[in-house]
Amino acid sequence: MITTPYLLFLGDAPDQLAAKVAQGIKDWRPENVVGQFRLPGCGADVKVADKTLQEAWDEGAKTLVIGVANRGGVISAAWKSVLLDALEMGYDLASGLHNLLRDEADLVAAAKKHGRTLHDVRVPSVKYPIANGKKRSGKRCLAVGTDCSVGKMYTAMCMDAEMRARGLKSTFRATGQTGILITGSGVPLDAVIADFMAGSVEWLTPDNDDDHWDMIEGQGSLFHVSYSGVTMALVHGGQPDALILSHEPTRKHMRGLPDYQQPSLEDLRDVALRLAQVANPDCKVVGISINTQHMGEDEALAYCAEVEARMGLPTVDPFRHGAGRLVDALLA
Amino acid sequence: MITTPYLLFLGDAPDQLAAKVAQGIKDWRPENVVGQFRLPGCGADVKVADKTLQEAWDEGAKTLVIGVANRGGVISAAWKSVLLDALEMGYDLASGLHNLLRDEADLVAAAKKHGRTLHDVRVPSVKYPIANGKKRSGKRCLAVGTDCSVGKMYTAMCMDAEMRARGLKSTFRATGQTGILITGSGVPLDAVIADFMAGSVEWLTPDNDDDHWDMIEGQGSLFHVSYSGVTMALVHGGQPDALILSHEPTRKHMRGLPDYQQPSLEDLRDVALRLAQVANPDCKVVGISINTQHMGEDEALAYCAEVEARMGLPTVDPFRHGAGRLVDALLA
Repeated sequence: MITTPYLLFLGDAPDQLAAKVAQGIKDWRPENVVGQFRLPGCGADVKVADKTLQEAWDEGAKTLVIGVANRGGVISAAWKSVLLDALEMGYDLASGLHNLLRDEADLVAAAKKHGRTLHDVRVPSVKYPIANGKKRSGKRCLAVGTDCSVGKMYTAMCMDAEMRARGLKSTFRATGQTGILITGSGVPLDAVIADFMAGSVEWLTPDNDDDHWDMIEGQGSLFHVSYSGVTMALVHGGQPDALILSHEPTRKHMRGLPDYQQPSLEDLRDVALRLAQVANPDCKVVGISINTQHMGEDEALAYCAEVEARMGLPTVDPFRHGAGRLVDALLA
Repeated sequence: MITTPYLLFLGDAPDQLAAKVAQGIKDWRPENVVGQFRLPGCGADVKVADKTLQEAWDEGAKTLVIGVANRGGVISAAWKSVLLDALEMGYDLASGLHNLLRDEADLVAAAKKHGRTLHDVRVPSVKYPIANGKKRSGKRCLAVGTDCSVGKMYTAMCMDAEMRARGLKSTFRATGQTGILITGSGVPLDAVIADFMAGSVEWLTPDNDDDHWDMIEGQGSLFHVSYSGVTMALVHGGQPDALILSHEPTRKHMRGLPDYQQPSLEDLRDVALRLAQVANPDCKVVGISINTQHMGEDEALAYCAEVEARMGLPTVDPFRHGAGRLVDALLA
């Protein structure tokens, strides 16, 4: 669990895309953000107040979150001095970088000296159990995709926000680095040892109130040969009551796999539902989430309408047009 | 790669079952075995000559393989003195124990001093790639089960032996600790980091001659919620041309999951084939392997005949009645 609220460290991000983790935190958990900290030459701006370490600290910030990708896999000297100052002031640090905070001897020494915590969210910090498959109380929803990176996290985030806006019980359950930094906790599923994957998802989505929904962040795709095992562990460990099918219609081939095509939504529905029903015989496919970011408004609406007519399921781009109909379907 | 031949260390195994790894090596790779080493009170015997460390060394043994489960997860003093003597004499050590050789400071020091290698086969020793899904030359066969521990490894071992007895090109590809110790190499798949599972299976089963078959050791089951992600990685990373369905008919429920029933063979066929065809559209289900160890001879034969008539696929217990018909089906 990462202590909130955060000061977002954007460093010398060359452009907005490099700061997408910080952007995600600001978009989805603005209440966790005290401000942003930028170095000279920073080309990103997540549109919150620029603060010094001291200013943010005085306003209650507890963790400096590295919300930016670094260049060349090294933590530069310019970054390092800020991080060391932050530790001395009393901040914890949180990072999703490939190179780990814990591998930097000076950061480790400073954290130890000042009694602070270094959160490397790419590395599991829990000894997860083997999955036991026992039926848990409460409800769970999982987005499964025709491909990787088709909007499964955004779908879960949108549905969680809609649920909470209606005063209903919902928790977004992060299974990737970005989601963990946004919400402050979760399981870095792609870094878990194979035998414990499904168990880590059970651990993440425990017994809960009967009317509580976990909105589980999906990963990979059952049809993506590089990562399908991770998806499978989510489908079985997550024990979902409801599946959302996620699709990005303009993709020419599976992400990173030029020789592979995305499956049809019908194929995804049939395969994912059969497998999900192993863990939860009552599981249903309740809706479809389309990532229309590369389509014009008319095209996006027409595409969703066509899919809805064909599949007989509410079909929306929840980020563009709202998740209301998906939540309606979940509760129906 | 573990250097052969082996001296099998049985230690003070309380009974035959405790020495099943040693038994597997002797059954499947007798040409790799120089002898067995037993301590006073050992209750196991894999029916090879008892040898001292020196006798086996003089006959060419290169690695002392701990082919026995230890009690209470500790390497006893009685074991330790033998292991230290072996390292001093020039042996490497290989172990599938949960507690690792590399965590024993005296073994590490002795190995370093004498230039020997400690093989802990539960721990990956390779930095595996992310799977790329590219079509590979050569052929691959994978057994998929209705449950864990239904005979998938024995099926692959039997088929590999039959292929080689016919003078055909075949390699057993180990994906678990026992298989790795038997053959001297492989991938400890259940210990691989999630993102690299499918890539490790691609690494294990590389391009090969067009008429060469990899007989890949299966793991888990697509229907076993604790381990299905591992199985999924085998189905996609292994890119099988042929699937064998494996089943143990007397099982009352899924192994370790009292609330779960085994799927039907029809269900297994449909789900596994659909998923396998994502990676290899030409994949076929070619035969069925029944583990009849808990059935009498008449019952076993009648059961196989019933399944064969129902499923329309050659159905045998390859360990009991030979793998000839499965290999015929593979080559057809």
